[in-house]
Amino acid sequence: MRTIVQKFGGTSVADVDKIRACAQRAIATRKSLESKGKPGGVIVVTSAMGKSTDLLVKMAAEANAHPPRREMDALLSTGERVTVALMAMVLEALGAPAVSFAARQVGIQTDADFTRARITAIDTAVLTEHLAAGRICVVAGFQGISPTGDITTLGRGGSDTTAVALAAALAAESCEIYTDVDGVYTADPRDVPTARKLDRITYEEMLELAALGAGVLHPRAVQFGAKYNVPIHVRHAHLPDEGTLITDKKDDQMEEVQVAGVALKENLGRVSLQSIPDVPGVASRVFAALAETGILVDDIIQTEGNDKLATISFTVEQADLSEIKPAIAKILADIGGGTERIDTGFAKVSVVGVGIRSHAALAALLFRTLADAQINIANITTSEIKVCAIIAQDDGKKAVKLVHDAFDLDKD
Amino acid sequence: MRTIVQKFGGTSVADVDKIRACAQRAIATRKSLESKGKPGGVIVVTSAMGKSTDLLVKMAAEANAHPPRREMDALLSTGERVTVALMAMVLEALGAPAVSFAARQVGIQTDADFTRARITAIDTAVLTEHLAAGRICVVAGFQGISPTGDITTLGRGGSDTTAVALAAALAAESCEIYTDVDGVYTADPRDVPTARKLDRITYEEMLELAALGAGVLHPRAVQFGAKYNVPIHVRHAHLPDEGTLITDKKDDQMEEVQVAGVALKENLGRVSLQSIPDVPGVASRVFAALAETGILVDDIIQTEGNDKLATISFTVEQADLSEIKPAIAKILADIGGGTERIDTGFAKVSVVGVGIRSHAALAALLFRTLADAQINIANITTSEIKVCAIIAQDDGKKAVKLVHDAFDLDKD
Repeated sequence: MRTIVQKFGGTSVADVDKIRACAQRAIATRKSLESKGKPGGVIVVTSAMGKSTDLLVKMAAEANAHPPRREMDALLSTGERVTVALMAMVLEALGAPAVSFAARQVGIQTDADFTRARITAIDTAVLTEHLAAGRICVVAGFQGISPTGDITTLGRGGSDTTAVALAAALAAESCEIYTDVDGVYTADPRDVPTARKLDRITYEEMLELAALGAGVLHPRAVQFGAKYNVPIHVRHAHLPDEGTLITDKKDDQMEEVQVAGVALKENLGRVSLQSIPDVPGVASRVFAALAETGILVDDIIQTEGNDKLATISFTVEQADLSEIKPAIAKILADIGGGTERIDTGFAKVSVVGVGIRSHAALAALLFRTLADAQINIANITTSEIKVCAIIAQDDGKKAVKLVHDAFDLDKD
Repeated sequence: MRTIVQKFGGTSVADVDKIRACAQRAIATRKSLESKGKPGGVIVVTSAMGKSTDLLVKMAAEANAHPPRREMDALLSTGERVTVALMAMVLEALGAPAVSFAARQVGIQTDADFTRARITAIDTAVLTEHLAAGRICVVAGFQGISPTGDITTLGRGGSDTTAVALAAALAAESCEIYTDVDGVYTADPRDVPTARKLDRITYEEMLELAALGAGVLHPRAVQFGAKYNVPIHVRHAHLPDEGTLITDKKDDQMEEVQVAGVALKENLGRVSLQSIPDVPGVASRVFAALAETGILVDDIIQTEGNDKLATISFTVEQADLSEIKPAIAKILADIGGGTERIDTGFAKVSVVGVGIRSHAALAALLFRTLADAQINIANITTSEIKVCAIIAQDDGKKAVKLVHDAFDLDKD
């Protein structure tokens, strides 16, 4: 059976009329699959309606300043369950046999890490049976069931992850992510008015863009797609546009480097550990200790100094700085010396494209564009598919526009 | 372990502050159990918050004029899940270890009759384990799990039934039903200002009063209590009053007939099947056919006529009349003759008390009271513990006041 998974986000299912519009799309998709002569199955994955999760979070805060994470998950998982039941009702009203499922009922197993659980297994037997019986299966996103039978939630981007994981488990033809934007852009259209929608992008590029702040799709979902090679199709829930297809390759001209987009990430702080012992094992001890805090660190640079001393610097979101400070003090004491320096007010401009690192000219174009505009670069980091410049936050929006122009990203 | 089950209704848990007040009561109960020197366990059963179920029902109606019952249950069951998670959070914030459970997690098995499922079994292992570990267990009322793992709801009075069923399964000391009234009264205080709160009442009396429209407690919950001999204690959620205790006997003077109360049920229609064949099996065919409609019929009277013809009459709620009419026509055709007569505008005044039937003087007092007030009696029915008079709806409120006075129910 040819199967398509369709995920509808919270704003797309904010009321019953919007749920109906999404249901019509699911029915049209099934008809289109069937018109191709083979039986076709549609799985719908939904988020909670509109702001309903915010309301639950607010009540939890009233109930307990530090709510137990198990109870938080029991609470938050109710939002998606409301949507799936309503979606199944709407589908039935429109004449399409449908059945709703909580994550447990379709065997979405996770670990027991409440509020940020990871999917460990999916049992596709129930879904396969209902799809074969001609029903549209509506599955609650964002949740799973722990080894001891407790309800877990998957954390941010959880419903996207549910959708891609189901698509992987069912070997679906594609996973369509319906949202309130019509695709992935060469830059955030709010910052760069000439930004252009991309027809295709690779998993790797999308991962970088997502990690760099492009909010369309959560990196976890993209990782899942890349790992199981599930084509992910990002589309607007209530517009007919084609959206952006995320796959393992962009087109047949893979040898030609194409820049996918420019990303701007703001509100970064930079932490530098200076004059630390330059001996084997120090970096691993530093980052093992940082990993324990659960705070995401990025743009790691180590430079060698004199007298067997080195400097390690990295960026974190400014909001995490207060939490990371005690960890830093402990780390310095542990590795036997060094001083800390913390600066704030940074942004990061990144150019993302497969193969970019091997084309020094592209990195040079980024640096020259910034230099011409008198924008100082505090740090540079590169990876296989991106070049990043850490600059002053005040220069951020101007920089992303200039770089978008310089790379001709407004042109097809 | 001495265990008490406490159920809090929707108005008692309408917001987080009210949930907190209920939580404090649960904690106080546990302390009081412990102060008696033995380990004590408290199970809290909650309804959905305030009007949240109404909101879900409204959305379901928008989604589908005839929502599939399976989906209706998946939808409605979320309301109680929200409350139990918040209740557990509040209990933890107040320093009491607590854990919330959906019905599935504590093995509340039901049949598959969606929207009105019946509990078939409860597995107490999980609850017993958590109670032994010192935790207050908070269980979602109103729901269960079908043999195929689908979510079911128990229909009206479902959370009361959950509470009494858990108390029965755990052999609890008592089941406390906290609600927005402070107990069971000798009559509805809105109709009879001199109505008096009862300290004790038997299951049978409570069953009759509940069936006759006293809305404090659903008959199903009372039936469960009677079957497993669970003392049920109806109390106000936010007042310290002692409430009403429902047990198998009122006190030690069981030989003396005591009238528990007077009930008024309004908006009744009366259906008469006249001149029907007076041969064995007719009544059973009539009522088997009526049972298939799912409509509750009451006050059944059969009278013998001439020429092997009989009359069967019964009452139904006026709202059900339009639905029962086609069934009646079919029944008359099926039994080979007879005419139907349907009258509306009736009310029923009932006097309830254990042993009442064997005391003809009490029935006589009811009839004389009505006659003295020129109130005509259309039908009379009696059972072991009640005497009922069907009268004109317009006389109902006046009648219940007069009868309450005549039986001295305002006096202790």
